[in-house]
Amino acid sequence: MDDHVCVVLVEPEFSGNIGFIARVMMNFGFKNLILVNPKASLDDTAHIFASHAGSVLDEARIISSLDELVSEFDFIVGTTSKVGSDYNVLRIPITPRRLAEFLVDVEGKIAIMFGRESIGLTNKELALCDVIVSIPSSDVYPVLNVSHAVAIILYELFTYGLKRRGKTLKFREASRVEKEILLRYFDRILEAVDYPDYKRRIAQTIFRHVIGRSFISGREAHTLMGVFRSVLVKLGFSL
Amino acid sequence: MDDHVCVVLVEPEFSGNIGFIARVMMNFGFKNLILVNPKASLDDTAHIFASHAGSVLDEARIISSLDELVSEFDFIVGTTSKVGSDYNVLRIPITPRRLAEFLVDVEGKIAIMFGRESIGLTNKELALCDVIVSIPSSDVYPVLNVSHAVAIILYELFTYGLKRRGKTLKFREASRVEKEILLRYFDRILEAVDYPDYKRRIAQTIFRHVIGRSFISGREAHTLMGVFRSVLVKLGFSL
Repeated sequence: MDDHVCVVLVEPEFSGNIGFIARVMMNFGFKNLILVNPKASLDDTAHIFASHAGSVLDEARIISSLDELVSEFDFIVGTTSKVGSDYNVLRIPITPRRLAEFLVDVEGKIAIMFGRESIGLTNKELALCDVIVSIPSSDVYPVLNVSHAVAIILYELFTYGLKRRGKTLKFREASRVEKEILLRYFDRILEAVDYPDYKRRIAQTIFRHVIGRSFISGREAHTLMGVFRSVLVKLGFSL
Repeated sequence: MDDHVCVVLVEPEFSGNIGFIARVMMNFGFKNLILVNPKASLDDTAHIFASHAGSVLDEARIISSLDELVSEFDFIVGTTSKVGSDYNVLRIPITPRRLAEFLVDVEGKIAIMFGRESIGLTNKELALCDVIVSIPSSDVYPVLNVSHAVAIILYELFTYGLKRRGKTLKFREASRVEKEILLRYFDRILEAVDYPDYKRRIAQTIFRHVIGRSFISGREAHTLMGVFRSVLVKLGFSL
């Protein structure tokens, strides 16, 4: 699965961390690294920390904005150490282990996004994600260094992949386009029923996350689209 | 279990790694650190890398030889990235996950020993251990930085401890009743839009699975119920 998974660092601030992340990626067989608007450079420090994984740094892609990613990837995973209560819908996370169980069956391009050392990912960035992952940790000091967070998540993906190797229970995950169509139908239903503006945004976000966490298949997405289409037609909307 | 577990670093060579290890220990609720004949000091670099876990460094014990440990600990775990063949019995390892399952039942003091950055633990040091752990990793570059190895092993111990205590995620998962109500609303929508009988069953099943896999929270379920209710009202159904 390593080839269609990208590690994405959003505005990383320290070269040493980028190097350490390159190393741990190679330790677990991952090689695609994307840096979004990095604040630190791929300098000597980065290469020292990368040790024998300099090739991961050399082949890293640097982009200026997250927008480029959204269209390119079929599935975007966000990470956070700030776990939401029931009332912060953006931050209801799954564990790394659960992520690994599901991603192993996902075909299509996957981005796993890690935030800045100082403040992590913003709410706006998390809202782009199909699913949010958080590493269980102590309440006293829950914030891991970003390279350790990467290590643990890639370790889970690698370990789970090993366990599953040979097993052929693959289903085709819904593509980004299919999911977007499904979400757009949901939006149109909210519109069609005059759902109050102030509640609409949160309903959209919640539906996006439920779909993201469910790792919906292409077949399943089409079935729900069919249902939503029928609702819209019945409500007098032309499609 | 955190209190009777010690992290032991044998002749660590870089202050930054010691600091990172202190941090990840605190991240997972461990505080007992022992340095055996360290080649690096607990200097400013160590404290910068430790971030908010300076207390772990301040309370670290420094000893001159491993011999002192053997009598003090009831159970000694060694770590290695060099996995043995059948002919090197010293290096036949278990995985971190199996270690976690196993240690939870061990009473008495436990030391988890990590080797030098350059050469790890020697055969003689491994021979002192009750069990050897190795982190599954890529054949191409199997050697993790020591702080990442510590992170992964403590993460496994922490996670397994949580599971054993039945500790759950911090949001309230939707109850069975809430999920049933949500599914019933979905059924009524299918009815309201005259969804063809032969497709109805499969749509119901798919929606049930999507909701099931998403581990929907109580809050999220209520939001979707609100949307579905609006749809039904708009379609002229009384509730």
